Amino acid sequence: MKSLLIRNVRTGAGGPLDVLVEDGRIARLGAAIDVQNACCIEDGAGLLVLPGLVEGHTHLDKTLWGMPWYHNAVAPQLIERIGNERRWRAATRHDAGAQSLALARAFLAAGTTRLRTHVDIDTDAALRHLHGVLATRETLRGQMEIQIVAFPQSGVLKRPGTDVLLAEALRAGADLLGGLDPCAIEGDAVQVLDLLFGLAERHGCGLDLHLHERSTMGAYSLDLILQRTAALQMQGKVAISHGFCLGDLAERERDALLARMAELDVALVTTAPASVAVPPVAACRAAGVTVVGGNDGIRDTWTPYGTPDMLERAMLIGLRNDFRRDDELAIALDCVTHSAARGCGFADYGLRPGARADLVLVDAQTLAEAVVARPVRKLVVAGGRIVAREGRLV
Amino acid sequence: MKSLLIRNVRTGAGGPLDVLVEDGRIARLGAAIDVQNACCIEDGAGLLVLPGLVEGHTHLDKTLWGMPWYHNAVAPQLIERIGNERRWRAATRHDAGAQSLALARAFLAAGTTRLRTHVDIDTDAALRHLHGVLATRETLRGQMEIQIVAFPQSGVLKRPGTDVLLAEALRAGADLLGGLDPCAIEGDAVQVLDLLFGLAERHGCGLDLHLHERSTMGAYSLDLILQRTAALQMQGKVAISHGFCLGDLAERERDALLARMAELDVALVTTAPASVAVPPVAACRAAGVTVVGGNDGIRDTWTPYGTPDMLERAMLIGLRNDFRRDDELAIALDCVTHSAARGCGFADYGLRPGARADLVLVDAQTLAEAVVARPVRKLVVAGGRIVAREGRLV
Repeated sequence: MKSLLIRNVRTGAGGPLDVLVEDGRIARLGAAIDVQNACCIEDGAGLLVLPGLVEGHTHLDKTLWGMPWYHNAVAPQLIERIGNERRWRAATRHDAGAQSLALARAFLAAGTTRLRTHVDIDTDAALRHLHGVLATRETLRGQMEIQIVAFPQSGVLKRPGTDVLLAEALRAGADLLGGLDPCAIEGDAVQVLDLLFGLAERHGCGLDLHLHERSTMGAYSLDLILQRTAALQMQGKVAISHGFCLGDLAERERDALLARMAELDVALVTTAPASVAVPPVAACRAAGVTVVGGNDGIRDTWTPYGTPDMLERAMLIGLRNDFRRDDELAIALDCVTHSAARGCGFADYGLRPGARADLVLVDAQTLAEAVVARPVRKLVVAGGRIVAREGRLV
Repeated sequence: MKSLLIRNVRTGAGGPLDVLVEDGRIARLGAAIDVQNACCIEDGAGLLVLPGLVEGHTHLDKTLWGMPWYHNAVAPQLIERIGNERRWRAATRHDAGAQSLALARAFLAAGTTRLRTHVDIDTDAALRHLHGVLATRETLRGQMEIQIVAFPQSGVLKRPGTDVLLAEALRAGADLLGGLDPCAIEGDAVQVLDLLFGLAERHGCGLDLHLHERSTMGAYSLDLILQRTAALQMQGKVAISHGFCLGDLAERERDALLARMAELDVALVTTAPASVAVPPVAACRAAGVTVVGGNDGIRDTWTPYGTPDMLERAMLIGLRNDFRRDDELAIALDCVTHSAARGCGFADYGLRPGARADLVLVDAQTLAEAVVARPVRKLVVAGGRIVAREGRLV
């Protein structure tokens, strides 16, 4: 791969810099880099450079991105939405391969170079969605790093055979094991968590568990999860997605749980939805918990909303947490860059020599402005190659 | 003015339509309109047509839109933010004329053709901001209809002379009288409301009052406002902006207040912020209250956020209220179109013969998609003239 020199970019601190990319990695960062060898030179034009953006929680397999408008008339209960989707996908033979690729490409064009997606595994669809997303991962290899969570969206305990499919999914290439509301959906928190942690232990994989349960029910489930994380010494391998209970427990109870999460290096993944109680990002970080931002589903049968733009998600995290100061907006941005990479375990991340050369150039005066204005991605470099200009893949 | 025929647009219901515009108004809407006279013909290309968008609550005079980035390090208390802004504007000689025009033009390019702005009146700046915004209104006359609220941002009671300035502002061209937190900021709810309602009565103008007060304090202030609205027979002339207390009172107490607001035709203006309790839009509408959407300040010393895009505000209203179904997204859109026009009293509104020809064309399959995708405004017609294409003023 030919080396690439991007001249004259800003990081938000200090003067203008050049970035030299060699063999897919950042070789040097500095003022007026002198290159001897043949090299592509790109004019950064004084733009702001960000590290490749990180999506910590989405559902590539579910999306209707680019499809005809889905008329949503679904009842609001979680269980209704789950059933509606399962039936709809069976009826339409939803193509998780084509759809996940379309959405992943849109993410890449908007500067996301690392992404964790949950993929539905159930006894109706078996591994059909997984195979689609595995194909997408293969197609985008070298450009986008995709982590796949084998996710039992329809529950494990009430649909016998799901556990076997989850094990198959992990053998077939899923990176982590997922799960969902041990009390409210599964109905037997101890049994399902023993099953999931047992599976994860046997496969040597991490866990990323959806926890929508509110208040004390959520606290109960979270306690059980933390107990098992400690007992199996899975420090740094478990993430809690949503964790709404951390948004409505009393502070003392919340902080006790956050302290245990920090101790066990359990990450929190938040989409910062505006309509429910959510874990306060500042309190989570103050307790030492790594906070990861995510979009959740984008334009699917669950929700009409969503764009594959992690700067927009950072903005929504900022709005939800009333982050107004520049130092607070830096936290929102961190949730979709450095913290997200750390929480998901994406290696070789950042704007530093040796890191994978994932770069995003935007026309913004400051990092804070990049979050609130979400400007078009002038240039996206992924794995050392230019993959997008002006918000479009090249 | 030459007439204008826009061929082949969709309203979201029924088949393709043509829209004939004559003398700044919609003359006809129908299939395959035949025109005899000379006429500009515009190909609507099957795009979705919306009525001109309505901004119900902003602060044109405060914005830093297009200026160098403002580094925000302000303390979170309301009173700190008020003082910080007043000092900052005095020190920088902030140009409310140029700034309000820049932001108003950006609103227009994004399809907003009617707008209500609060303008700061205080004993430091006197009517300086007002004169700037009056100039903007004059510049945009015929394209954008701007309502001006004379707004005592720094309070009335504690800054003697403010009441005199408010009266001057109304004589100078402000349309409505504003106000702010009768208990929490003014410190004497009865006295300040008597003063403001008295002023409004003498000037024959309406009132639009900021009410950030939470819970029972807000309920107390709101009750006093409703008492005076009834006593002075100001039905249909009073609006409550924010009304956060309606988001955290017990339902029974909230619904009693909503019923009185509906009875007195007091509109509620909401920006649906994600980080505080807010009036639930569905409950307000169910009670018969007209709900108006607004952005509040955009990129000012208060907040770094905001875009002059009412479709984005509709999306944020939808997200805050967990509106996912198509019929719910229609409510979010209504808050920045028909309901907003009704609540603010903008006349001759809508997609119907006789209405002012304010039209917005977007590439969206459905009204719901227009809200969640916020597509570029392909064409904006204001007062019968094409004012913007592809999101830019022409």
